[in-house]
Amino acid sequence: MKKNIGIVGVGLIGGSIALDLTRSGEEIMVRGAERNEELGKKVLGKRLVHEILSLRETVEKSDIIIVATPPDVTTRILPEVLSLATHQTVIDVASVKEPVLDAVANHPNRHLFVAAHPMAGTEFSGPDAAQSGLFCQKACILCDAEKSSEKSLSEARELLYRLGMRIIYMDAGAHDRHAAYVSHISHITSFALALTVLEKEKSERNIFDLASGGFDSTVRLAKSEASMWNPVFRLNRENMLEVIKSYEHQLNRFRRAIEDEDDHEMQLLIRESNSIRKILKQE
Amino acid sequence: MKKNIGIVGVGLIGGSIALDLTRSGEEIMVRGAERNEELGKKVLGKRLVHEILSLRETVEKSDIIIVATPPDVTTRILPEVLSLATHQTVIDVASVKEPVLDAVANHPNRHLFVAAHPMAGTEFSGPDAAQSGLFCQKACILCDAEKSSEKSLSEARELLYRLGMRIIYMDAGAHDRHAAYVSHISHITSFALALTVLEKEKSERNIFDLASGGFDSTVRLAKSEASMWNPVFRLNRENMLEVIKSYEHQLNRFRRAIEDEDDHEMQLLIRESNSIRKILKQE
Repeated sequence: MKKNIGIVGVGLIGGSIALDLTRSGEEIMVRGAERNEELGKKVLGKRLVHEILSLRETVEKSDIIIVATPPDVTTRILPEVLSLATHQTVIDVASVKEPVLDAVANHPNRHLFVAAHPMAGTEFSGPDAAQSGLFCQKACILCDAEKSSEKSLSEARELLYRLGMRIIYMDAGAHDRHAAYVSHISHITSFALALTVLEKEKSERNIFDLASGGFDSTVRLAKSEASMWNPVFRLNRENMLEVIKSYEHQLNRFRRAIEDEDDHEMQLLIRESNSIRKILKQE
Repeated sequence: MKKNIGIVGVGLIGGSIALDLTRSGEEIMVRGAERNEELGKKVLGKRLVHEILSLRETVEKSDIIIVATPPDVTTRILPEVLSLATHQTVIDVASVKEPVLDAVANHPNRHLFVAAHPMAGTEFSGPDAAQSGLFCQKACILCDAEKSSEKSLSEARELLYRLGMRIIYMDAGAHDRHAAYVSHISHITSFALALTVLEKEKSERNIFDLASGGFDSTVRLAKSEASMWNPVFRLNRENMLEVIKSYEHQLNRFRRAIEDEDDHEMQLLIRESNSIRKILKQE
């Protein structure tokens, strides 16, 4: 594998990649570009990377560059990184892919770029949230791979395999639609649930005395950072509006069954939902 | 502690209580009443209880009886159990309390009864789902405790402490309202989310390729049984309609922020939701 890896944005995702590489036992040099000086110090303090450099130096000294910034920053910074690249493979990890691909569609170095979305993360952000093994046995989606050069693609694959991921190919449109349904909407429903209960707490103290594991898990994602999710919702706007509409429709069916005291309909709705068992891993 | 415990309905909750008691190292005799013969055999096969008897025999041979049936069954069977009781402490564990308390409000043996809701469970049901330690360090809500006799209350408390629970007192109305907000609604949002994605899957194959931990946790409760949750929603109807209305309102705020591309509003909404961090246990 290539020995010089550069990571632009050493947060949860970039930092976790860095951790797995620096501790791989191989002589891999991991360099980070981090504009925020304080964050840069933290990244070094946690020994996530070997050195923090400017964006230009990071690109120059690397064979593979991973852009791991929030997706709106990625659409701005990726063309810049590609312009600095001469031969390097450039990989992004944003969770919305069409706007990222659009941003570099006509870039002369487009062939150096591989659009990736590792399906892994937690509700926490920043270098403190970095953890080793985060990607192990997870899926990584590569989008519009036919537009990447064979060399870049194969270097990207090797790195992703090294992190323990399996690779799935998808066009960016399908990716963004699917991500809206099985990832982005979960954040909206969690945020909305959190607000519902927090609002009620203002008049009913101690309401959380009754919260147990079920509540924790449905609302866990509501801890997620605005700086990450605001741009996701904005960049995936059309798909988000579609999935929310469809979710509202399903929610309505439940509300109506309760309103109408329609036991038969409620039974059907719950049993239909139960088919999700076939999808979810058994615990 | 009393040595003869009877459990009416040996499923997830009843079975888990039985497990903790039969394996406590003390000479506690646990008897189960289970009308379904096949379930009864399974309960014995898993050695959750020492013997399966009729409801009448179970009551007669016990000092404490725990009614652990789905809440609609509890409202029917509890008056029957109380009528059979002569001196026994009778505890129920239903997750909706007002209808249960109403069902025995004027029962001559009302003082023998303690209304409890252990805030513990999983998305699975039946004796196969029983697990030891389920209640350890969880809260148990006791409702309208002033209507139970001192003796019954103290026997119930001793048993609940033995299971590792801490006890919180609450009136039934507040309990049902709070439970709607921090437990019941989570099931509705999970069911609705499951249906949304399952519906989409019909036209978009492989949509679950992108599902990761975040999706799993928001949708986990959608595995839950209709026989358990249908009666909960029915019996807690007014509170359910209130919380769904409030949830729809919050969902609307998110939808509107996306529609209007109102970054500022979305930022505020997410940051407000983030306050849920102060409530949820850190992982």
